[in-house]
Amino acid sequence: MQQERCSSSDRPLDPGCVLACDAERSADQPGCAPVDFPVAVVLPAGGSGERMGLPAPKQFCTILNRPLISYTIQAFERLPWIGTVVVVVAKENHDLMLNIVQKFNHTKVNVVHGGTTRHRSIFNGLQAFCNTSNSLTPKPKVVIIHDAVRPFVEEDLLLKITLAAKEQGASGAIRPLVSTVIATTSEGYLDHSLERAKYRASEMPQGFLYDVIFQAYQRCSELDFEFGSECLHLALQYCGVNAKLIEGPPTLWKVTYKRDLAAAEAIIKETLSMSACIIAGAEAEATELAKTLQKNLNMMETDVIPCAKESNAEYLSKMRNFIHLSMTGSNFLGVLEMVKHFEDTDHARLYPVVIVWVQLNMTKQSVDSQKTDELTAFRSLASEVIQGNVLLYGIQIEHTKVPEQWERSVERLTQITVALIRDRNAALTGQLLHV
Amino acid sequence: MQQERCSSSDRPLDPGCVLACDAERSADQPGCAPVDFPVAVVLPAGGSGERMGLPAPKQFCTILNRPLISYTIQAFERLPWIGTVVVVVAKENHDLMLNIVQKFNHTKVNVVHGGTTRHRSIFNGLQAFCNTSNSLTPKPKVVIIHDAVRPFVEEDLLLKITLAAKEQGASGAIRPLVSTVIATTSEGYLDHSLERAKYRASEMPQGFLYDVIFQAYQRCSELDFEFGSECLHLALQYCGVNAKLIEGPPTLWKVTYKRDLAAAEAIIKETLSMSACIIAGAEAEATELAKTLQKNLNMMETDVIPCAKESNAEYLSKMRNFIHLSMTGSNFLGVLEMVKHFEDTDHARLYPVVIVWVQLNMTKQSVDSQKTDELTAFRSLASEVIQGNVLLYGIQIEHTKVPEQWERSVERLTQITVALIRDRNAALTGQLLHV
Repeated sequence: MQQERCSSSDRPLDPGCVLACDAERSADQPGCAPVDFPVAVVLPAGGSGERMGLPAPKQFCTILNRPLISYTIQAFERLPWIGTVVVVVAKENHDLMLNIVQKFNHTKVNVVHGGTTRHRSIFNGLQAFCNTSNSLTPKPKVVIIHDAVRPFVEEDLLLKITLAAKEQGASGAIRPLVSTVIATTSEGYLDHSLERAKYRASEMPQGFLYDVIFQAYQRCSELDFEFGSECLHLALQYCGVNAKLIEGPPTLWKVTYKRDLAAAEAIIKETLSMSACIIAGAEAEATELAKTLQKNLNMMETDVIPCAKESNAEYLSKMRNFIHLSMTGSNFLGVLEMVKHFEDTDHARLYPVVIVWVQLNMTKQSVDSQKTDELTAFRSLASEVIQGNVLLYGIQIEHTKVPEQWERSVERLTQITVALIRDRNAALTGQLLHV
Repeated sequence: MQQERCSSSDRPLDPGCVLACDAERSADQPGCAPVDFPVAVVLPAGGSGERMGLPAPKQFCTILNRPLISYTIQAFERLPWIGTVVVVVAKENHDLMLNIVQKFNHTKVNVVHGGTTRHRSIFNGLQAFCNTSNSLTPKPKVVIIHDAVRPFVEEDLLLKITLAAKEQGASGAIRPLVSTVIATTSEGYLDHSLERAKYRASEMPQGFLYDVIFQAYQRCSELDFEFGSECLHLALQYCGVNAKLIEGPPTLWKVTYKRDLAAAEAIIKETLSMSACIIAGAEAEATELAKTLQKNLNMMETDVIPCAKESNAEYLSKMRNFIHLSMTGSNFLGVLEMVKHFEDTDHARLYPVVIVWVQLNMTKQSVDSQKTDELTAFRSLASEVIQGNVLLYGIQIEHTKVPEQWERSVERLTQITVALIRDRNAALTGQLLHV
């Protein structure tokens, strides 16, 4: 029980939430009451990435071939109760941002130019709603301000922030302090340390009644624009609004250093590897293998289906990982059909889809010439589909009647399959591995 | 220039520093003046890992088959001017810790039992030096207190902390605040936000004159032992010592959540992948390929040597990655010799060594029976050497006289080689991949 609670502490509570096509589920969930007033988002993304150790600003660094900012946008876009997402970028990144919007089909985004500081950029973002002639950006009741580099924000928290902002005028996510905070003397010595329990780290997202935060920015000083960092502070100082503070999960953390990119990648890959669909075919041996594989893959949720035909379209459109079993000598028509379906439905647009093609070899001897042709066709298919974000790998497993040996082989097949699904390594597609 | 400065900001300044066998270099470096007084370390490692989302306490979670705490111990043990490292563990982890000390051959470690809180554990650690009959733990002049879950601490910072502690009585590493710190009202509203520039996050390591910190613990209250978290604060309150604060690098961060483990793994893997040794053999085609490969592998430092014989023992004992080229048909005696050398020198004890065996195939036709035998021998070698932490992979590349085609092949060979070296994936050893 303890462990179960803990194991989610660093992960999205519902891992599906960071994936697409889950928006429709939210209506069924308790606590996901519809928001009956207009909500918009401002996403300042003008940062230069200096702290990161990377040439590109961190919001444009890619994870699985997709810029970080696209994951963040998607976290809002999938929610039906959120309207426009105003993305504020530096002028030199305008075209880059438009390309991202187009490539990943972001439909709610409005790109505007940033200012020289974070506060100026946010104010620019808010002003996009003042232009009443622009029907894309009607003035919202509540505006959420977030960071482009916090991709794992969940609906649950966004709802709390939004409702508290409507009620109180302002709201913000907080986290406990990880380190003790100390005050320093001007000579670089310890002055005193703060009592950790009385303080919190102020994180994002934050929510505001649009009129409150807009007025705060209209009233604030050049000094605030230049050196300020805390929107909640402006709402308090210039509008007398005490923000409601809401504790968020650790996944809210801000991707700041290069190592954070690796951490974000690990979270995304783990989330994508939580379930798989095993396509067993009709033959007895393959069905048997599918069952053992399913038992071995106990760290994933797996479903076994006989084939990847139209009738299983639901699996094809929901799952990100497919293990396609077939007997040596049979062609890989099934794999081709799947790939075609993914193309037609644009299923791999946001996340790469993995297909592990497992060939079960019943005899020691194999027809080498046939094998060579098939292998060539397999490799060329793999190098073709990777263009469409489908990663195709092959594994060949020799059948044996010696039970312990077979058990070991299937165990090894499991390990390799898990490694391929978890790593999603593009350099290894088209390889036919052996067990 | 800007980029160069940045690119190291999230990495150990000298990546070699986190690897072993670099201690001897420190004597040559400016700023690494010998410390002429006894220095010891106390490493509290009693944490339960609750925040982490993992069943094992985080200090015992493994990265590349080695517990995090062993990396941290190694960061101190490699420095000749540091004496005993007292590791304080919970009673139930005593045997586990002794096993780690033995398996990774930690020679400076003394394991003692922790108390119920962090401060009690540190005090227990300090008391280990009072037992004058124990020649393993003579009383040091300066004691460094660190966290078991901050594995990337560098000599440079340890020196500064140690010298400042000797001079001032106490010293501690600090970092700028990542988030704004706010004070909250008891009802959960914003009270005020702190001016970020005036405060710092207090991190580890910290250094103390042994007598100062020991006295502070002797004088401090039960309340301090129970709820306190800041050693610098105790030194100030009970001994009137104002600690000197020293800004540390971002790599000092504390592995707190599961995602931090992924980040630490990424840093270790990247550091291990910074250089490789190409063993080209004597044949002209292989030597040619080695040169092209070296040019392509421009993200790594590479050296090309003709063979892995005794005369190249220096390469074998320094490098962690080997790309061994040979012509199809030639045996892999060279690989066997290397493996033997690693066994004899215990080279892979702390970090897995990667061997990528590249077979250059000059003719379209290959002798299948010979290939099968060789393949079987290769796989069985791979499954044997992985026990000794050596990861053996194979890649077969077909030679072609068509220049563009050959260029593409070598490019693909490069990608696969880099992927194998970077990922260090144990599930894929013994596979013969194709280009």
